[in-house]
Amino acid sequence: MTNIEVKTRVKQYQIKIMINSLHHLGTLVTKVWCARQVAVVTDTNVGPYYAKLVTDELTAAGFKVRVMTVPAGEASKSWAQVQSLIDQLSAAHFSRSDGVLALGGGVVGDLAGFVASIYMRGIALIQVPTSLLAQVDSSVGGKTAIDLPTGKNLVGSFYQPDLVVIDPAILVTLPPRMLAEGYGEIVKCAALVGGDFWQSLHQITSVAAILPAAPDLIAASVAFKARVVMADEHEQGQRQLLNFGHTIGHAVELLADGQLMHGEAVAIGLVQVCRLFAAHGLAPQAVAAVMQHDKKVHGTALTWVYLSAVGQPHLYPIAVTDLATWMGDLWSVS
Amino acid sequence: MTNIEVKTRVKQYQIKIMINSLHHLGTLVTKVWCARQVAVVTDTNVGPYYAKLVTDELTAAGFKVRVMTVPAGEASKSWAQVQSLIDQLSAAHFSRSDGVLALGGGVVGDLAGFVASIYMRGIALIQVPTSLLAQVDSSVGGKTAIDLPTGKNLVGSFYQPDLVVIDPAILVTLPPRMLAEGYGEIVKCAALVGGDFWQSLHQITSVAAILPAAPDLIAASVAFKARVVMADEHEQGQRQLLNFGHTIGHAVELLADGQLMHGEAVAIGLVQVCRLFAAHGLAPQAVAAVMQHDKKVHGTALTWVYLSAVGQPHLYPIAVTDLATWMGDLWSVS
Repeated sequence: MTNIEVKTRVKQYQIKIMINSLHHLGTLVTKVWCARQVAVVTDTNVGPYYAKLVTDELTAAGFKVRVMTVPAGEASKSWAQVQSLIDQLSAAHFSRSDGVLALGGGVVGDLAGFVASIYMRGIALIQVPTSLLAQVDSSVGGKTAIDLPTGKNLVGSFYQPDLVVIDPAILVTLPPRMLAEGYGEIVKCAALVGGDFWQSLHQITSVAAILPAAPDLIAASVAFKARVVMADEHEQGQRQLLNFGHTIGHAVELLADGQLMHGEAVAIGLVQVCRLFAAHGLAPQAVAAVMQHDKKVHGTALTWVYLSAVGQPHLYPIAVTDLATWMGDLWSVS
Repeated sequence: MTNIEVKTRVKQYQIKIMINSLHHLGTLVTKVWCARQVAVVTDTNVGPYYAKLVTDELTAAGFKVRVMTVPAGEASKSWAQVQSLIDQLSAAHFSRSDGVLALGGGVVGDLAGFVASIYMRGIALIQVPTSLLAQVDSSVGGKTAIDLPTGKNLVGSFYQPDLVVIDPAILVTLPPRMLAEGYGEIVKCAALVGGDFWQSLHQITSVAAILPAAPDLIAASVAFKARVVMADEHEQGQRQLLNFGHTIGHAVELLADGQLMHGEAVAIGLVQVCRLFAAHGLAPQAVAAVMQHDKKVHGTALTWVYLSAVGQPHLYPIAVTDLATWMGDLWSVS
């Protein structure tokens, strides 16, 4: 078991990475929560696999559990789902002393985290990420969000959980595509860190090779992200480095209109596979227009992350008005 | 001018209480904000009086101003207005470096504060409260909120502004009823503090007498609340004392269905004028049922505040299941 301690200005909590930790969830949760009502928020993909196990574990540990299921997919990061979950919490008389446990991938974590952060001005939250991407990405940092038609994650909060439980054993139920998606985020972290972490990736030559290495890869990624987040909780400085690949990635994801997973879009951003855009018939103009709504726009500039070498990341602002031209240059580079 | 310094875990800011400070708003804002877009959120009551002055002041100071007006009244503390304001911010390409200035009473402050706290996970906020109640109440403490059909302020956040500007000169445009409403909150603070503050209220024998005393009364109230809030930012302990009068008050307000102002309802709660409920035909049963959704419910108990003497407040939990009986007892006391 790996324990990673996260200390922010408002909260200190642990990220526990342990094989089969889902089977000890009741014990783990009683270490941070006294008896209370718990809303287990999950989705139509994850619920059928794990909602019963989690409910049984929590019930045996003395919690009163209520499962709230949202449709799987990015479309659930919406005002409609926020209102629906909050109406369910209110109807079940959830009080400030109760809690939300997010059981699912990034969508569930972002949505349930946001709901927990605004219901009664914030009730307790535990994150149990079930996809590889969520385990290495959204589970650390306290970012919550929903999407607007104008862009992803444009509404949300910084809200720290009381605990994050990561069970790499869950990954065996993931389709290979989702493993590859999460691995993109691991590659991102390794590229930013360099050194041994980057070297260790050379052993991963197939999707199947990700699984046995997952506990170590997750631990290395989460430890790196925790360090960055602790130094810059609200993304005003170095935390922006974690956006490496996300500037193009978010725009690609939006324009792909559901055909690409988040991690895949970011992977595309990461390696700047410009030809793929072209193959999809997406012009730089369209991408640049979408990116003007990116949260990474500060004033009139959009901050990019690039590497001068593995382990040597830098921030690079581009004026929004120069985006289309600048991306045109990028596209014409082969 | 009175400057009250508020230090919370995440932010330090000033509350400036100064006659005619609205006429110096540009200068005051430039001390905390560099040049940026500013959304002045106001309502249909306050906008016609002060939106132009505020816009001119901010524009002259170099800010790009956009006024966003919501209908006056509690009904604007809704999901619909939150979404409308956020859509306006997004359409105007507001970035993380821009800001929201709330110009209005408690409704505008709660709504605009909530919007600022969740747009792009939080953009800068300045509060300019224009009602007496907002000046002494909602402007300090960083609470933001909207209402649900099941209860007031059930969704929101703790979000500290960069600055609060209080102009007591604005109060001359308030109808007497709104002065009296805000005065109720001052009485609440004075009753909790006791001593000289309580004694000073003996000079206020008419609504007209509130105006000349307002700068001192506001300063005393805000200073007290700032002390309490600094000691307990997230309302887990002593800050609950500020809920004095609110337990019944919120329920009364909800059941009065718009016929009572917030401060009036709290004043009713404060003096426990049980007969007034009876005169409105409201049974203790109905009030108790509504109160079960109160945010002050922790687990299965609702925490009340009472005074053993002026300046001697205490917290007193009552089991939710005993509420109706307990309130029945209260009602039958004459």
